[in-house]
Amino acid sequence: MKYYDFALAPNPRRVRVFAAEKGIALDTVQVNIRAGEQFEEAFRAINPNCTVPVLVLDDGTSLTDSFAICRYLEELQPEPPLLGRDAREKALVELWQRRVELEGFQAAAEALRNSVERLVGRAVVGPVGYSQIPALAERGRKRLAKFYEMLNDRLGDSEYLAGPDYTAADLCALIAVDFAEKAVQAEVPEGLTALEAWHETVSARPSAAA
Amino acid sequence: MKYYDFALAPNPRRVRVFAAEKGIALDTVQVNIRAGEQFEEAFRAINPNCTVPVLVLDDGTSLTDSFAICRYLEELQPEPPLLGRDAREKALVELWQRRVELEGFQAAAEALRNSVERLVGRAVVGPVGYSQIPALAERGRKRLAKFYEMLNDRLGDSEYLAGPDYTAADLCALIAVDFAEKAVQAEVPEGLTALEAWHETVSARPSAAA
Repeated sequence: MKYYDFALAPNPRRVRVFAAEKGIALDTVQVNIRAGEQFEEAFRAINPNCTVPVLVLDDGTSLTDSFAICRYLEELQPEPPLLGRDAREKALVELWQRRVELEGFQAAAEALRNSVERLVGRAVVGPVGYSQIPALAERGRKRLAKFYEMLNDRLGDSEYLAGPDYTAADLCALIAVDFAEKAVQAEVPEGLTALEAWHETVSARPSAAA
Repeated sequence: MKYYDFALAPNPRRVRVFAAEKGIALDTVQVNIRAGEQFEEAFRAINPNCTVPVLVLDDGTSLTDSFAICRYLEELQPEPPLLGRDAREKALVELWQRRVELEGFQAAAEALRNSVERLVGRAVVGPVGYSQIPALAERGRKRLAKFYEMLNDRLGDSEYLAGPDYTAADLCALIAVDFAEKAVQAEVPEGLTALEAWHETVSARPSAAA
């Protein structure tokens, strides 16, 4: 297997943190998407959609989505389980991953991609050029404020997002929060104490540095 | 278990088609989201996020996301497998579900929610009011054209989206295409013969009428 990564981007980080929790070492190649390497012919042959991360399996199959790669790693090495142990927990992990993705991660991505100079004409990931929509960047920021409140409410009731155990939903939320804070300076507001405490806990896991 | 559904909305249809493929009969309650029933107190107690579908389990857990519900049903009744048989196939189903969701379903939802009169002030699902962004509706339509081409290319190489077998990725794509065609009149253009042939095949399955 070969893992195509970019150290500064949030989707590839999802796979790195997931693999670190599993103790899986990935044979990694950096693709510098800030320098446009994802659009070069060599990388298009691996992923015509021009995105990272990609995991290329030994039979040549390209897995071109971070969630698909995490699913593969979960099957390859089930322990420790990160996508749930039984039907109910598996469904709750999926539910919280989806909420984090739809309400947080995508809001941060909209805020970023529709506002910064380096992404003019590239507001949607991939090879097709789309113009930035400033109103969408602004809406992304509003949605992030709601996302933080939602996480704080949930984490006031539950130790981790999907229940009493750390799961992939937590690592997705960690990545969404860090992405929002770093990429668009949407800081978690003061006073969301449950969210702050959880963020400190999950950030202290060795995997968070992956 | 109790299933909260709305017959005219695409996300609840995902669960109905999935359950029909499994031969699972759901005890169903209709929530008329065209009449605003999702904002009434009775339904907020089931899902404070005011969306359908919801599957309420016997222990009271509310599964408030269609993908989470499908995951639960897959675990409850593994045969026939719709989310993949082995690690590689599970990853490919996840990959194609994500591509269909990100490139097709969300594009159709953006085109719809940011343009029609009945959703003024409600451009994002859920209880928070967001203004429509006409440029996002327009971008959604452009993205749907690319989505159809992408599906056609894939289905020229592969009988079904994730490989030689029908999976949940196909039912997600069926729902995305039907949603785009019906809700925003974004018809599949003439000449995409692989997509047309696949659409005919999957539409002919009894589950498609669920």
